[in-house]
Amino acid sequence: MLWSFLPKESNFFDLFDQQVEYAVKAAAFFKELVAKGTLDDQAVQTMKDIEHLGDDVAHNIIERLDKTFITPFDREDIHSLAKEIDDIIDMIHTIVNRLRVYKLEGIDKNLIEFAAVIEESVAAVACAVKGMRDMKHSKAVMDSCVEINRLENVGDSMRDTMLAELFEQARHDPVMVIKRKEIYQDAETILDICEDVAHVVESILVKHA
Amino acid sequence: MLWSFLPKESNFFDLFDQQVEYAVKAAAFFKELVAKGTLDDQAVQTMKDIEHLGDDVAHNIIERLDKTFITPFDREDIHSLAKEIDDIIDMIHTIVNRLRVYKLEGIDKNLIEFAAVIEESVAAVACAVKGMRDMKHSKAVMDSCVEINRLENVGDSMRDTMLAELFEQARHDPVMVIKRKEIYQDAETILDICEDVAHVVESILVKHA
Amino acid sequence: MLWSFLPKESNFFDLFDQQVEYAVKAAAFFKELVAKGTLDDQAVQTMKDIEHLGDDVAHNIIERLDKTFITPFDREDIHSLAKEIDDIIDMIHTIVNRLRVYKLEGIDKNLIEFAAVIEESVAAVACAVKGMRDMKHSKAVMDSCVEINRLENVGDSMRDTMLAELFEQARHDPVMVIKRKEIYQDAETILDICEDVAHVVESILVKHA
Repeated sequence: MLWSFLPKESNFFDLFDQQVEYAVKAAAFFKELVAKGTLDDQAVQTMKDIEHLGDDVAHNIIERLDKTFITPFDREDIHSLAKEIDDIIDMIHTIVNRLRVYKLEGIDKNLIEFAAVIEESVAAVACAVKGMRDMKHSKAVMDSCVEINRLENVGDSMRDTMLAELFEQARHDPVMVIKRKEIYQDAETILDICEDVAHVVESILVKHA
Repeated sequence: MLWSFLPKESNFFDLFDQQVEYAVKAAAFFKELVAKGTLDDQAVQTMKDIEHLGDDVAHNIIERLDKTFITPFDREDIHSLAKEIDDIIDMIHTIVNRLRVYKLEGIDKNLIEFAAVIEESVAAVACAVKGMRDMKHSKAVMDSCVEINRLENVGDSMRDTMLAELFEQARHDPVMVIKRKEIYQDAETILDICEDVAHVVESILVKHA
Repeated sequence: MLWSFLPKESNFFDLFDQQVEYAVKAAAFFKELVAKGTLDDQAVQTMKDIEHLGDDVAHNIIERLDKTFITPFDREDIHSLAKEIDDIIDMIHTIVNRLRVYKLEGIDKNLIEFAAVIEESVAAVACAVKGMRDMKHSKAVMDSCVEINRLENVGDSMRDTMLAELFEQARHDPVMVIKRKEIYQDAETILDICEDVAHVVESILVKHA
């Protein structure tokens, strides 16, 4: 009942829902791109558009924070959450840009593997963030956070294995080693940022325990 | 009126003014150095001196925090702000040291470009931090934060373009690629830290909205 | 007196004591490994076991946080502290794994030097964290934090010197440069994370000043 008198409060949840949807979209698009192994202007533009739309929602959240008296959880946490989700989308955008700038075209089975794990992790982020609307069912949110942490560990060891292979296979082309190493690290960084989101969500739950 | 009875409170603003001035000085000195393209002992010492002076103010802020009952904004935020501004100066110091240790002398037009953007960003940081003294004029502070964010994006894409060029031009000297890549990344990190300051400032404003 | 009625509160300190002990153990084991200069399956497993035990304590702390009404300091700070100490152990685990995956065996005098500084820094972290139990003796805790900061600076300049040497000595084996550079940076990152713990501890002290 009371809830209906607090439309602005629930708006934050709506905005976070939108924002994580852009993260989901970015992850899906990245997976599609690496499956094709080609990167044209159109693809780079599409990625940029998703990033801009995500930015708009983030700014919307911060601005609304300025004008809202009652917030569903601490203002600082709303701020960090918006920033971290934005960082996910930014990093996917960065990696796409870098593939282009570094002229790394062609199918890279490592990147295909990474894109699948990133998609899973971003899906778990979406679950965790959407689940915050209903703090009573925090078990599901906590499970998503555990899953995000698990996928970060998976990414960590994937990265190390891929680098070991790269060091062997491309040892006569050190600049290629440098380029691909950076891209795999960027891919792993996306999973780190997902974990950062999980930490913010966990700390919000802890405060509302 | 009341203000005059709270000298210690206003002292925090004075100290932050001093601290950002050292950041401004460090950025100006870095720009000068890369314009000359040479690095002697004297220059390294001057940079070290600026870093020490910045450190002293940061420690001063933290110590005063211990002894002050009323603070103009949350103790934790004063702590983070002092730390992040210190990080800007540290990172400029680090990059100068690294140029020396890596024996990267000579004019590098990319670094000249970066130094100009860094100087602009640090100037916006100084505006944002100094502007906090008067929360009623938060519009100007917010504008500086937006500018800092914009410059971070500029730096991001500058870095990527420079790396792409570097990969082409220096592909027969991979160790040179490794060295310069690190320096450009460090330069970009300075802009990231400026953005972190902007986030702390924004979150302080959000709490006082 | 009252203290004895709050057994759970004191439990957090017991758990943090356990957690830092695993960090101390990880640092000691790392030092032993690099002194030998060989890495077999058994060693990798031992490191993994320490990391798992550390993980268990961290999860224990977070779960207990959910069920405890009165905490000795802010819930968020307990959360960050547990996370950062966990990050120290994780990073030592990562570096051991990487040495193996990159096939970097043999005595590396630089790593021996780093392992000694890491052991010192983790010992200071243990002092700082254990000292929080008795906020009245915050001087000792603050001294440990200063020492951690000092060691981070030592590590920073060690790393730069080692990289300069590496660039000279291994310039005809760029992939080796890439591998060792990453390992030295990881070693330095451990000292950075110790510094992050010190910052959390300092900010807790600041709030309880």
